[in-house]
Amino acid sequence: MSGIGRLVTFEGIDGSGKSTQIALLAETLRARGHAVVVTREPGGSPGAEEIRKLVLEGDPDRWSAETEILLFTATRRDHLERTILPALAAGKIVLSDRFADSTRMYQGLSRGDLRGLVDRLHDLMIGREPDLTILIDMEPATGLARAKARQTSEERFEDFGQPLQEQMRKGFLDLAAQFPDRFRVIDGDQPIDEVAEDVAGVVLAELP
Amino acid sequence: MSGIGRLVTFEGIDGSGKSTQIALLAETLRARGHAVVVTREPGGSPGAEEIRKLVLEGDPDRWSAETEILLFTATRRDHLERTILPALAAGKIVLSDRFADSTRMYQGLSRGDLRGLVDRLHDLMIGREPDLTILIDMEPATGLARAKARQTSEERFEDFGQPLQEQMRKGFLDLAAQFPDRFRVIDGDQPIDEVAEDVAGVVLAELP
Repeated sequence: MSGIGRLVTFEGIDGSGKSTQIALLAETLRARGHAVVVTREPGGSPGAEEIRKLVLEGDPDRWSAETEILLFTATRRDHLERTILPALAAGKIVLSDRFADSTRMYQGLSRGDLRGLVDRLHDLMIGREPDLTILIDMEPATGLARAKARQTSEERFEDFGQPLQEQMRKGFLDLAAQFPDRFRVIDGDQPIDEVAEDVAGVVLAELP
Repeated sequence: MSGIGRLVTFEGIDGSGKSTQIALLAETLRARGHAVVVTREPGGSPGAEEIRKLVLEGDPDRWSAETEILLFTATRRDHLERTILPALAAGKIVLSDRFADSTRMYQGLSRGDLRGLVDRLHDLMIGREPDLTILIDMEPATGLARAKARQTSEERFEDFGQPLQEQMRKGFLDLAAQFPDRFRVIDGDQPIDEVAEDVAGVVLAELP
């Protein structure tokens, strides 16, 4: 089987197990003969990774929300042009850890009034939605504990807490309700292999 | 005299003497009691200068024109929020070496089909034109010789030549014709002090 190019994105709160599930799904798909590209945002291409560093390192408050959205859109445009579109054109399945829905959710959380701007900028400069979006939904307490355990220098959990994780969960579920055609919500509170089975079932059902 | 906040931008081909003329005008205005802020693009605020470095250092072809426009718009948004608008609110006269017209001209030069995108992105994320734009127009050969003489690591003149300078001149003159209300074209081939006199005359005529 080849030549079916699909963009599948993974969304979910920190610690929801997106990267583990992406790795397991990639294995399953490859075992069935699909060509798979695993990528992530912000980043996913050399230029986008350079901009990612600029945004995620240093004082997080040194740019306004609007400037930050422009920088994230620049990383997404580069990621799309250099990594995603060429892979889709070659008939590969692209699995991306986060995409535009993460920007929608985070901006909606910090400044709900920016959602219109985020959408107009997306339409103007990106203009592409995923074919399928897997939302790994889970209890915020579980996600938070996992995320804290593997905290990296890029992540800033000092201000994080369960109330914020609850809001993030709700933000993603709201997006899933808003785009029901492409969102599939998976119960992330199950054991890892059962989550993987659900994810694979949903993705395989969408392939010819 | 105070409290009249005006954004005056300077445009022109490389070597046209913008920064010299800005320094002379700032002196003239200060001598008359105006509070003046001198700034430049890309850059003009700490965050914008960080993005400037990212864009101007390294391989100039590593991002597409669209990604580069997003990055330049991010620098402009930050410059506007952090430097220009606070100065205008405090009644100061802001003199900026380049602004959005430079993006319009350069993108029009390399990819004319992008002008619509540049304008829509400007309307969405910047939404502010200068009160007055001084175009220092001059013979391309003179500008090129001056620019080469003070070449810096950020500038990339290896591919530059008189034909390109001619196109840039024409691009700016086209913009002046498109926005006649705010553009003033100054003859930059005169001696420096005569150019300065013309610039001061045009600017002072616009102040109350």
